[in-house]
Amino acid sequence: MQVIDTAEKLAMFSEHWSPKIVASLNDYHVKLVKLQGHFTWHCHQDTDELFMVLKGRMNISLRDREVVLQPGQLFVVAKGVEHRPWSEEECSALLLEPAGVVNTGDAGGAQTAANDVWI
Amino acid sequence: MQVIDTAEKLAMFSEHWSPKIVASLNDYHVKLVKLQGHFTWHCHQDTDELFMVLKGRMNISLRDREVVLQPGQLFVVAKGVEHRPWSEEECSALLLEPAGVVNTGDAGGAQTAANDVWI
Repeated sequence: MQVIDTAEKLAMFSEHWSPKIVASLNDYHVKLVKLQGHFTWHCHQDTDELFMVLKGRMNISLRDREVVLQPGQLFVVAKGVEHRPWSEEECSALLLEPAGVVNTGDAGGAQTAANDVWI
Repeated sequence: MQVIDTAEKLAMFSEHWSPKIVASLNDYHVKLVKLQGHFTWHCHQDTDELFMVLKGRMNISLRDREVVLQPGQLFVVAKGVEHRPWSEEECSALLLEPAGVVNTGDAGGAQTAANDVWI
């Protein structure tokens, strides 16, 4: 059990779309991710997914609307709902989801990242 | 699915030690709480519990040490570990834990709050 400083952890990596685990809570993982550009459309059939913006501005495209998140705002994408995170400028966010969730969900492809990297 | 602004939600209540649910993630609840003074020593036998400080400074006494959390820092109290949150001045934090967790855990007592209040 240790204090996790999100700013310190974010300073430890620079790559985009590659979530890093910083804490576990039962069978869930808390991850930090940096975003810039467009991610792939995907969904997670078995789980909700929480995003909380820590720095910058994050967009989440849904099939029927656009969501914009600023620091201190959070959003839960319900399971099975297609979404496409994107950010014009670099943005940092906290993710919360069950351990083992793959970032690209059912879509796969080049943006698929390892889902077990701790920092 | 809606954007949750933690600052807006925090402005909606003033009482201390009374967590309010702002979002659900599968069978977990995201809660906001304001703290001031000392909480009761307690533990949760069946679950870990995550605290993330949003404003102010939060202390968590453990039986063997003191933890201090500033905004942007988070801490997971492992299940079964006795802890006592406290804060000299008012502090706001985000909690994450399975739905239904009682704030005073195994201790009960006067500081026990309802665990099903949404804002």
